Amino acid sequence: MKFNAPYLILIGGEKDPTYAKTGYGLVQWRRELVAGQLRFPDCELDLGVPDLSVIDAANQGVGSLVIGTATIGGIIPDDWWTVIIEAVDHGLDIINGLHTKLKDNPKINDRAKSSGSRLLDIRVPPSNIPVGSGKERSGQRLLTVATDCACGKKYTALSMNDTMGRAGINSTFRATGQTGIMISGEGIPIDAVTADFISGAAEMLTPDNEPNHWDVIEGQGSLFHPGYSGVSLGLLNGSQPDAFIVCHDATRMVISGWEHYSLPSVKECIDLHIQLGRITNPDIACVGISLNTSGLSMDERDSYLNALRKDTSLPCVDPLIDGCDDILLHMKKVFSF
Amino acid sequence: MKFNAPYLILIGGEKDPTYAKTGYGLVQWRRELVAGQLRFPDCELDLGVPDLSVIDAANQGVGSLVIGTATIGGIIPDDWWTVIIEAVDHGLDIINGLHTKLKDNPKINDRAKSSGSRLLDIRVPPSNIPVGSGKERSGQRLLTVATDCACGKKYTALSMNDTMGRAGINSTFRATGQTGIMISGEGIPIDAVTADFISGAAEMLTPDNEPNHWDVIEGQGSLFHPGYSGVSLGLLNGSQPDAFIVCHDATRMVISGWEHYSLPSVKECIDLHIQLGRITNPDIACVGISLNTSGLSMDERDSYLNALRKDTSLPCVDPLIDGCDDILLHMKKVFSF
Repeated sequence: MKFNAPYLILIGGEKDPTYAKTGYGLVQWRRELVAGQLRFPDCELDLGVPDLSVIDAANQGVGSLVIGTATIGGIIPDDWWTVIIEAVDHGLDIINGLHTKLKDNPKINDRAKSSGSRLLDIRVPPSNIPVGSGKERSGQRLLTVATDCACGKKYTALSMNDTMGRAGINSTFRATGQTGIMISGEGIPIDAVTADFISGAAEMLTPDNEPNHWDVIEGQGSLFHPGYSGVSLGLLNGSQPDAFIVCHDATRMVISGWEHYSLPSVKECIDLHIQLGRITNPDIACVGISLNTSGLSMDERDSYLNALRKDTSLPCVDPLIDGCDDILLHMKKVFSF
Repeated sequence: MKFNAPYLILIGGEKDPTYAKTGYGLVQWRRELVAGQLRFPDCELDLGVPDLSVIDAANQGVGSLVIGTATIGGIIPDDWWTVIIEAVDHGLDIINGLHTKLKDNPKINDRAKSSGSRLLDIRVPPSNIPVGSGKERSGQRLLTVATDCACGKKYTALSMNDTMGRAGINSTFRATGQTGIMISGEGIPIDAVTADFISGAAEMLTPDNEPNHWDVIEGQGSLFHPGYSGVSLGLLNGSQPDAFIVCHDATRMVISGWEHYSLPSVKECIDLHIQLGRITNPDIACVGISLNTSGLSMDERDSYLNALRKDTSLPCVDPLIDGCDDILLHMKKVFSF
């Protein structure tokens, strides 16, 4: 599936930046592909790119309208359909990462056929995913894991991949979620795969490669999460990572949205991933900790990171502030490259 | 979904009893619902029930033709379609647990509409499964787990449920696989659920119940399995079992079909389930070990079971030989009922 850039990002009347993470992610990581945003009058967000109507976009040669939000339950709001139909009629492709499928809507399908617009539902896994074989593959793999959802796995993987690229290391970002797939232009939406095939999907996503090549794999969920642990374990076992980075929000105490569950400590998170990761890769190692320290003052931040460095003997960074160079430096020592 | 009994079981030209486990399971656990079997001339198996043609079955008032095998990849062989169409034309329901869906075949659909036959694809999870909440539920739950696939999880759960029923304990068998669903008449095919919803499916399958009621849940896969660990962890976390039984084949040394993986020991299997089960139920306990000892001589069997009893301080039974009474006795002490 190849996406036609540049993009017009639809964020409609969204008010919560958390739900517009697809739009924000594209602007952050692929600014050069973003022509503008389409906002309704009641929208309280701003991606910091030009406001465009569908007609403006069509006149400027925009290739695709991207659904820029992840709404609860993955439903497309009614008033969005008007914009989507307008874009279809103007021949723009529609890129959609929600659970709701554009292809299930016969009216849109008919109009897309007339105009030549492509309806790209990216939350549809390939149909030929095998059961995971557990067989060793050539090349190296790095997985981002976490103490909870939404605490930096995608950001850290993209940041590590950029850091490696700048250092001349042969690496590929491997997307496992809708936003990651839009950013990289490919990937497998691992949470939409049928349960029996989770580790097989991870194997398919990170096939045999050159010995010095690194796949940098976007993690999903958390092994400690009462809703998503199965996805996380399947992804861990199928990825067979040589290295992993633990992502953690420094001030979060409970699982977000599951407040009756305490967050594990970073140490517990490292230990469990080593224990379970060893099932398919006996040499798995933690190579760093990526922290969201936005809830801490600068003083608190320094003492927090220093204490964690001492406790784990690992590089501890906030990738937004520190970048990921310290982690790469540590990896070069551990893996001798 | 209510199934119309009695059943005619189609095993076609199958030669391997392992692949006819649906047929054997129905005869073993629901003999009173089975009118007969339909075998092709080259079939080398015998379920021990009368051979019937579709016409015989229709004349005898048989309600459903059951696909009695689980073929590799879940495909329905070409020569089976002839029999299925004949059964549809005679108004029999078709009960199908394979990945191939009868409803995807337009020809069969048209003929079923004419005859009033129902096409029951049971490997289709309900569409309204929520993400797992991790919330505590009333009632008690027992889950069968294992060191590998196909080493007695379904049999042990059914046997425990029967043992509890005979002892006057309020219990329900909860099916998670195609054969279990056919035997019990309901359930959720957990391996066919979308990855994000595995633990939610387990929660839906075992809802709030009376304080002294036991759900006896059929396990799937194994936490140690490179292909299916994600399904097993989601089922464990969503079931929130108070008690679990470890199933193990006494003479198996490697994971069946994944021979490059050693089997974990029973002790390792107990420990990991306690460790990960505690995430959603801090009081989880192992209450017994269910063994397939068919590969051992009687002498070997006795010394094997005695050594394992000593090692684990738990009841160790081969349910086919010993039944599950010892495990129930132990549970009564542990849970004071």
